[in-house]
This record gives sequence, structure tokens and C-alpha cells, in this order.
Amino acid sequence: MKSLFVIILVVINTYNVFSQSDEKILANIYQMTLKNSPIYENLRYLTKKIGNRINGSPQLAAAIEFTRQLMIEYQFDSVYLQPVMVPNWTREKNEIVKIINSPSLGNQSLNCIALGNSIGTGDEGLVGEVIEINGMDELKKTDKNLVNGKIVFLNQTLDNSLINILEGYSKVFNQRTLGASQASIKGAKAVIIRSITTGIDDSPHTGNIFYEDGVKKIPAVTISTKDADMLSKHLKREPKTTIYLELHCRTLANVLSYNVIGEIKGNQFPDEIILVGGHIDSWDVGEGAHDDGAGCLQAVEVLRSIKVLNIQPKHTLRVVLWVDEENSVSGGKAYAEKCQQNKSKNIAALESDFGGFLPIGFYIDTDNEVALSKIISWKRYFEPYQIFQFSKGDAGVDVYPLKNDGILLMGLMTNLQRYSTLHHSDKDVFEEVDKRELELGAATMTSMVYLFDKY
Amino acid sequence: MKSLFVIILVVINTYNVFSQSDEKILANIYQMTLKNSPIYENLRYLTKKIGNRINGSPQLAAAIEFTRQLMIEYQFDSVYLQPVMVPNWTREKNEIVKIINSPSLGNQSLNCIALGNSIGTGDEGLVGEVIEINGMDELKKTDKNLVNGKIVFLNQTLDNSLINILEGYSKVFNQRTLGASQASIKGAKAVIIRSITTGIDDSPHTGNIFYEDGVKKIPAVTISTKDADMLSKHLKREPKTTIYLELHCRTLANVLSYNVIGEIKGNQFPDEIILVGGHIDSWDVGEGAHDDGAGCLQAVEVLRSIKVLNIQPKHTLRVVLWVDEENSVSGGKAYAEKCQQNKSKNIAALESDFGGFLPIGFYIDTDNEVALSKIISWKRYFEPYQIFQFSKGDAGVDVYPLKNDGILLMGLMTNLQRYSTLHHSDKDVFEEVDKRELELGAATMTSMVYLFDKY
Repeated sequence: MKSLFVIILVVINTYNVFSQSDEKILANIYQMTLKNSPIYENLRYLTKKIGNRINGSPQLAAAIEFTRQLMIEYQFDSVYLQPVMVPNWTREKNEIVKIINSPSLGNQSLNCIALGNSIGTGDEGLVGEVIEINGMDELKKTDKNLVNGKIVFLNQTLDNSLINILEGYSKVFNQRTLGASQASIKGAKAVIIRSITTGIDDSPHTGNIFYEDGVKKIPAVTISTKDADMLSKHLKREPKTTIYLELHCRTLANVLSYNVIGEIKGNQFPDEIILVGGHIDSWDVGEGAHDDGAGCLQAVEVLRSIKVLNIQPKHTLRVVLWVDEENSVSGGKAYAEKCQQNKSKNIAALESDFGGFLPIGFYIDTDNEVALSKIISWKRYFEPYQIFQFSKGDAGVDVYPLKNDGILLMGLMTNLQRYSTLHHSDKDVFEEVDKRELELGAATMTSMVYLFDKY
Repeated sequence: MKSLFVIILVVINTYNVFSQSDEKILANIYQMTLKNSPIYENLRYLTKKIGNRINGSPQLAAAIEFTRQLMIEYQFDSVYLQPVMVPNWTREKNEIVKIINSPSLGNQSLNCIALGNSIGTGDEGLVGEVIEINGMDELKKTDKNLVNGKIVFLNQTLDNSLINILEGYSKVFNQRTLGASQASIKGAKAVIIRSITTGIDDSPHTGNIFYEDGVKKIPAVTISTKDADMLSKHLKREPKTTIYLELHCRTLANVLSYNVIGEIKGNQFPDEIILVGGHIDSWDVGEGAHDDGAGCLQAVEVLRSIKVLNIQPKHTLRVVLWVDEENSVSGGKAYAEKCQQNKSKNIAALESDFGGFLPIGFYIDTDNEVALSKIISWKRYFEPYQIFQFSKGDAGVDVYPLKNDGILLMGLMTNLQRYSTLHHSDKDVFEEVDKRELELGAATMTSMVYLFDKY
């Protein structure tokens, strides 16, 4: 009995020594970030002074320069831009979706916004009878003759009874992204899509669509959930409703833009890279505050914190602010290609693209069970900071192109309950980001990068 | 080996059968609440139609009647009011705190609000030289001669580097509650207190003060954190700064008000009561949305959910909406006294008074270690709903008077990161409450009450 007791004592003791120093460092990280981080003021500048940042916009150029200068000001070892040619879809603000000549309503405008990548209608607009279809499965089953020549109104709702918003989101995502092409195959002249949000309000939520090769492109627009409910009700009373639609969006020639990159060199394995990042572009509504101004500035803050706290990393720490996540992920793909060309070794990548909300854990994307259980064993370090969830899951769209390199991908998991009502809409503004929650997210990322670098 | 194996199988099997049915019921509770609960619209009515609800106000009377009618509409088995005499402190809106005759600033008004229970200054106001003191410990050490005849400016800041806001709050709480009497003992003529919040902004945050018996009452006012920082800076430049102060608050005779109570009778132990509640009063700024409109309507929602889901409780479930939490807890005390008189047996009480934010766990206040570990063993039921924290801690001010009865006290724990910037200020409005977070809080409370009733 006695020898066993000694062993246990030794083990406990080792554990304590080992862990106390890391615990202390994590405490310092959180404390410094909550007390002295410039991140909230940086986000104020990015959102309030610069604004939203769609591909091709002067605001995107300004944001790239702002974050590049931040990294220089913070004295990262190297700061540079990676050129990327990005699609240049633009939108005039005056879209129109209007019920016309209704016996009960007369003319009635709906709150709408073009979906990203959509073609326009020209100044003349288009007019068509509307058919409501409850999502993609029903569209597939619907007789071509019922759809032909009409405007298809895809009105599947987001299931708000699920705890995990992403689960509900993924179920209606295709309606937005593929609805236009699938309706076009059946002869539709345009699609109106219900906005993806748990909220019932007046804000339309944009997002990207994909046109399938060889399928005629038709205009795609989204309307607010309140108006979608109203239109659906109206169609029950007046099934032969006609809508006028006018979209002034179009895709111009690709333009030159950049991923913004900064590094702190590792002192033992400088060729092995631990990556943190977010995406610097946003949609052209709201201020791109949660999506993804918050994530970008959290990623920058990780490296700033490491420097300020005098932590010397063993591996090279690299922050990448990807361009063009919203439209075609060309920034993420270009970064992955460059790494492959240069044979540079990214060992881990942590993206923050779930908004600047309260951090609650990490999504981990890896087939390496040893690495996974190692990461999960660090849970105890995070629990004092109310970070409890370490789950397998998709880490982020921009790091995904790196997936095949045996790299460990992670995404900062946040409290998403409030997100869908803001996402891709005019409500995604600075005021919706809480200073402490933003800071806690940054500190949580810094802590993970610190542990990953050390072990 | 074999027999052990069989035992394990049996245990696992029992566990599954036992737990699956409870898991299903919790899933139903969460799903129903997220899909069909009227709680958000009830809160809209309470905050937007009725508004804030200080003791003695017509709004408080309206809120009592509104929630009483809600309970009747939801067909609780019995609904009644418990009369309580409550203090009636009132405040005119036009307080003034103004730096006067400053060589550099001239006259400069500060954002201020009287602290609850404070005496007024009369129309003539008062003028005094200001002395800044960094909190209660420093006040105790400060020479009486330095304080005598002056206005004491207590400017200890809330430590924003702590994860748990309550920990920081409790450290500066006394500055607000006891600062006036302690300064009065040293001859001060009034106190100006820095608002308790992690935010640096223009909103003053009110809250109660206590005058110690036998100590001369002096006026107490709080100023916004931005103005506290400004004043502190100014005092370094001009130590002989004079301030004019005008407060029109006073305490009228006590008035009759009510705790609102509703019950669903238990079918096995009708005399044993499981209590849920919040407090129906609020301060007279903002809309009392998080504090504690949210908690009241969550508590009502618990009983409504149990009824709607056709769950027949074994014990009597009782909702109590206490009056006068903010001023003197007379509602909570009167309820506890009445229970003692009637020898009614409250076996558990769950209060929601940490705002309608994302629920993250429960505070549990009990000396009964068996009960505590039983509750903690239910953690697994809650983890799918991202409820991870089961900690010993204070459950709530209104249930506290019940503590000596061998009762188990619980408080719904929420994400408090955003709270201190809203708390007791004009920012505590409906728009700051997220629908899903409010609903998740209600579902979490209902689930706990269900489990407690069953086991």
C-alpha cells in the first residue's frame, strides 16, 4: 500500500507543478485581455470608420490596410500581403420585390435584398406569377408545368426548436444556395427565398448562391421572414398573385485583393506554422461586425497577446485574414495553394468565424485521434473560463482547403443563440458585439495557441 | 468475470430505460419552449406596455395585475395575491450633479442618478468641495478632518479582469450600499459614488443604499463611469473642485402591494412545495427587462410548460413573483414569514434573478451534501442544452429568507458578461433580451423543476 501511495503523491505533485505554470499563464492571458486589450477599439474602427467590406469595395481595401498597419504597429516579425484575384459582384441598393395588382393589397413592397452572385433583372425588372414551394425536397417533387414561367418562392423555415442553430441552418442552406438553379431547371424565371434566421422580423439576410454549370441563370432575391409569412398567407387567399421584381446586381471582372498575413517566428520549429485567422471581407449590409470583423481582430489579438506577455513560441505563429470568404473562398483556397507550392507546414489552424459572442468551446476537425484526445485533455485549463465544449465539427470555411495536409483544424465555438437574427443583415453592427465577450473569445484563442505551441 | 459482466449490463440497461424517458421529456420541454412559448411576447408587454416598476408606482400595480391574469389565463389551480406593505421611495427625474466655477471647465454637468433610499437635498441643493476616495477601505483610513464638511467621491472601480462579474461586483458593492453612512460618520455632507459596471459609458447605474441606525443621513448619488473617470482626472488638475448637487428623492409612507402567487397542486405530496420565482418590481430607469421581468416570466413559464406538456407533478409547484426586491426585500421576507406561520413546507426554491441571458447552469445553496450530489448527478441531462455549471453559491435575494427551513435553494446561472453594462440603468430594456436565450432559461428552469419533482 505504501509504495502505491508514494507513486500517487508523486504523480499528483508532478501534475500540479506542470499545470500550475500553465494555469498561471492562461490566467495572465485572460486578465491582460480583459484589462488592456485594444481589440474592442480596433473593432470600433473597422466597423464604424471603415464599415462593411464586400469584394471590390474601397472599404475592403481600407480594412486590409488598417489590419496590415495594426500588425506592423504590434511589431510582428513579418507582415505581408498575399495577392488574390477575387470575384467582384456588386449590388445597387434599390432592389424591388412588390406584390402588384392584388385585389386585396393593391401594390405592396416587401423587404428584400439580392442574394450574392445573383444576376440582375435590368432596369425593366420582371413580372411573374408566384408559386410557393416549401424547400428543396418539395421543389424536386413539383411538376415542371407548375413551375414553368413563374417566380418560385422558396419558403422553408429554419427549425427554431433546435439548440444548435448550425444544425437548423444546414437544413435550409441549400434552399438559398442551390434554389435558383434547381428552379431554373424547371423553367422558373426568378426565385424569392425566405431569409435564414430564427427571428421573425423585417431584415432580409443575404448570402451566396451558386449557379450550376449549364443551367440558365435566373435572378435570386431574399425577403424578410415577416414578409415571407405575409406573402405565404396572402398566397392562400390569392393563389394567382403577381410579383414585380427588380435587381440591379451584376458580376464585374475579377479584381486584385489580398490576404493579410503576419507572423511571429518560432524559436525551435520556425518552419512549422500554427495558424489563426478570420475573414476580412463581409457582405455589403450592416458593418460585418460579428461576421467577421470580430474574428479578424481576435486573430490579430492572439499574436499581439503572445508578444505582450513575452511568450516565446516554439513554432511560428501566423495570423491570416482571408479575403473573399463570403463570395467564393478564393482567399482561403489561394492560401492553401501557396502553402502547398512552398511546401510550408501548417500544423494547426484555428479560425474564428462564429461571431464575437461568448466563447463556449472549440470545434475540432481531425482524423488524428491522439491529437484529438490531447486537445480534449486541455479542457480542464479552460473550465475556469466557462469554456466547456470540445466537439468534433467543421472548423471554418477558410481553413477547410488546408484539410488534407494532416493539419489539425479548429474553430472557436461561440454562443450562437443570438447570431441568426443578425447574420448577413443590416443588424450585424458594432453595437451588437459585447466588449467582454469579444475579449474572452480572443483570450480563449490565445490560450489554445499557447497550449498547442507548447505541447 | 461473467457475473460481473451481467451486472454491468443490467445496470447500464436500467440506466438507459430510466434516463431515456427523462431525456425525452427534457427534449419536449426545450422544443416546446423554443417553438411555442409566449414568454417573449409577455416580456414585450411587461416592458414596452407597462414599463419599469418601482415600489408605489402605477406600473408596479399594472404588472402585478398583468401577471396575475396571465396565471389565471394559463389555468393554474390557484392564483392569489399576498399583501405586503412596501417602502415607497420616489425620485424626481431632474437630479443635478455639476462641477461649478472650475477655472478650466466652468460649470460642467455629470450624468447622474440618485441611489435608492437616498434622502434629497431640497430645492436649494447643496454645494461642497469634493474629495476623491478609492473605496471603503481607504475611506476608513482617511482622516476625519479631510472628510468633514465635504462631498465624498467614492471611485473604486469594478475589477473587469475577473471572469465572474459577481466576484467583482461583490468587492465594490459596499461602496454603494454603505458609503453614505460611513462618509457621514466622518462628517461628509453627501456622497457621489462611481456606478458599478465594467463598461465605460454615460449611463449611471442606480441601486440601493442602507443608512445605518443613528448615523445622520446624507444624500447619495451615482455618476456614470465616464464622468467618474473625468472627475477623477479633473481633481488631479484642480484638487479644490466644488460641486453642486440637487436630489429630489424622498421616502413616503409605506404602501400596500403584493406578491403574486400561482400554484399547480401536486398529486402525491400536495403540502410539499417546489417554488420558482423572480421579482416583479424594478428600478425606475430602463424597463426592468433583464432585472427582473425576464425572471418573473420565466418562472410563470415553468408552470405553464408543465401544464401544457401534461406533466402531473407529485409536489405542489408554486410560482411567486416577489415585490420589493430592489428596495428592502419585504416581499421575500413576507413570503418566508407567512410560510413559517402556516407551517407550509417549501422543499426547494429556484429563483431567476441573473437576467434573461443565456443560461449556463445553477447556483445551489444547501448544506445537504446528499441533495447537492443528487442535483449534480443530473448534469448529464442538461449538457445537451449547453448547461454545464452546477456550483455552490447564493441562489437569490428573495429566496434567501427561506434558507433556514432545510430547503434547497437554487438560482438560474446565466452568462453575465453583458449584464453589468445594463444593470439598474436606462439600458435594461426589452431590446437587450434575446428571445432564444430567454426561452432557453425558462426551459432550463422547467427541466430542473421536473427532475426535482420526480426524484
